[in-house]
Amino acid sequence: MIVATTVEQVRAALPAANIGFIPTMGFLHEGHLSLIDAARETGANFIAVSIFVNPKQFGPNEDLASYPRDEARDKALLETKNVDLLFLPTVDVMYPPGAQTAVSAGAVAKPLEGERRPGHFDGVATVVLKLFNIIQPDIAVFGRKDAQQCAVIDRMVRDLDVPVKLVFSDTAREHDGLAMSSRNSYLSTDERTIAPALHRALRAGEEAITHGVHDVDAVETVMRRMIEETPGIEVDYLAVVDPETFLAPVDFRREVLVAGAVRVGRTRLIDNIRVQRPRS
Amino acid sequence: MIVATTVEQVRAALPAANIGFIPTMGFLHEGHLSLIDAARETGANFIAVSIFVNPKQFGPNEDLASYPRDEARDKALLETKNVDLLFLPTVDVMYPPGAQTAVSAGAVAKPLEGERRPGHFDGVATVVLKLFNIIQPDIAVFGRKDAQQCAVIDRMVRDLDVPVKLVFSDTAREHDGLAMSSRNSYLSTDERTIAPALHRALRAGEEAITHGVHDVDAVETVMRRMIEETPGIEVDYLAVVDPETFLAPVDFRREVLVAGAVRVGRTRLIDNIRVQRPRS
Repeated sequence: MIVATTVEQVRAALPAANIGFIPTMGFLHEGHLSLIDAARETGANFIAVSIFVNPKQFGPNEDLASYPRDEARDKALLETKNVDLLFLPTVDVMYPPGAQTAVSAGAVAKPLEGERRPGHFDGVATVVLKLFNIIQPDIAVFGRKDAQQCAVIDRMVRDLDVPVKLVFSDTAREHDGLAMSSRNSYLSTDERTIAPALHRALRAGEEAITHGVHDVDAVETVMRRMIEETPGIEVDYLAVVDPETFLAPVDFRREVLVAGAVRVGRTRLIDNIRVQRPRS
Repeated sequence: MIVATTVEQVRAALPAANIGFIPTMGFLHEGHLSLIDAARETGANFIAVSIFVNPKQFGPNEDLASYPRDEARDKALLETKNVDLLFLPTVDVMYPPGAQTAVSAGAVAKPLEGERRPGHFDGVATVVLKLFNIIQPDIAVFGRKDAQQCAVIDRMVRDLDVPVKLVFSDTAREHDGLAMSSRNSYLSTDERTIAPALHRALRAGEEAITHGVHDVDAVETVMRRMIEETPGIEVDYLAVVDPETFLAPVDFRREVLVAGAVRVGRTRLIDNIRVQRPRS
């Protein structure tokens, strides 16, 4: 595995075609590794992974400083997956002095996460576009756990004609349904026991919809009650939204998204389920 | 010459390498054609030109509707220059319904033109990035008449790691010094006689600097007086700025930029001169 820390090193290492790319913030888990498999399944034969904890996507009161890091472990995991190139830039490589141009994500970046994390998706879109321009992948894979991020990047790629094929990969979960996330490492043993309530609430929302509850408020109430049964969890939002706009109203005859964010102690967790064609 | 109107047509026509690209708004003049020569001089052997009057870079009170167009003449001119590909998209190809992601140009886009034309450079940066992503050129050529546009695009390419080499080409001028511009076609015969006063004023500013007037206000006064001698011209701005930031203060020991915008009748004209290492 080539480890590059500068743009020039990356470009010197790239083959002409079939590059699959997985951008990450590191502290890798099974979810990340499944994205590598998803890239290979599309036919990519050169796998590039980036690890960069992007300061531009963290708000002033967020967990940039404490975000978990373990470079040695990450490298070893990527070696086991036969990754060809690891791009491991410093903040200065990505944002040298004087850098000032950014991507401005559109309306899809405004609700839910965008409302709670002002500037977050502009930071995501900017760094992802930079990484695409540096790696010049044929395909790039993102996990659906960050559903709104997927939608923002999908919009960006279409709106700016970025020459990359996007693949969105299903969320990897622990046995009790908790979505895999580097931030799960923040959870104490007790908090870890509580955390799956978010997924259970979303599943209850999904069940309600597939059983014919086609009313946003009613579904949101079902989900909220599930969370409120569990002490130690605080709801940030629980929502039923259109999977393209991330807004209500939704068309229950088509796919809808149930999405939530909660706080368990000091840890903020997000998750979502796409509810496909309901039965009734 | 291939004429493409969709992104798919463009991509099907592109060779693997050595693509030189010249984005334009059409109504081509000798200045544009000199950019094609500049592209060839860098070694480009496939020349792509786009003609697109980009609505996103025009303000609500600007000349979008009246901007001069002559597609047949433009095509004939490009044929004489052996251009390989003309990209001629409609507004809907460039901005389909739902498009919402944009480039946000940085601090360099705020003074001078940016102050008078809010949103102009975001529109320029967005369309240029889209065109780069569609054409995927090795080099792209821009005219220095739009000096601040060159600076905005240079910043964008560096900040977003866009894989293209930029070439900035000297302003083509009429015999009396007037910078070539599609907008010169708006000028009446009388206005055309008056218009070169802008260039003369900038030359006077340059002269003052090279003769040791190293004071921004003094140089600006010299230029303003030159314009005020000519009835029928109204100064929008005349400025001495740093060629990277487009702000004062400037370091007169290095290159500085004298730049101006004037109105002649209803036509707004811009021009600039880079003043290299002064003699004293």
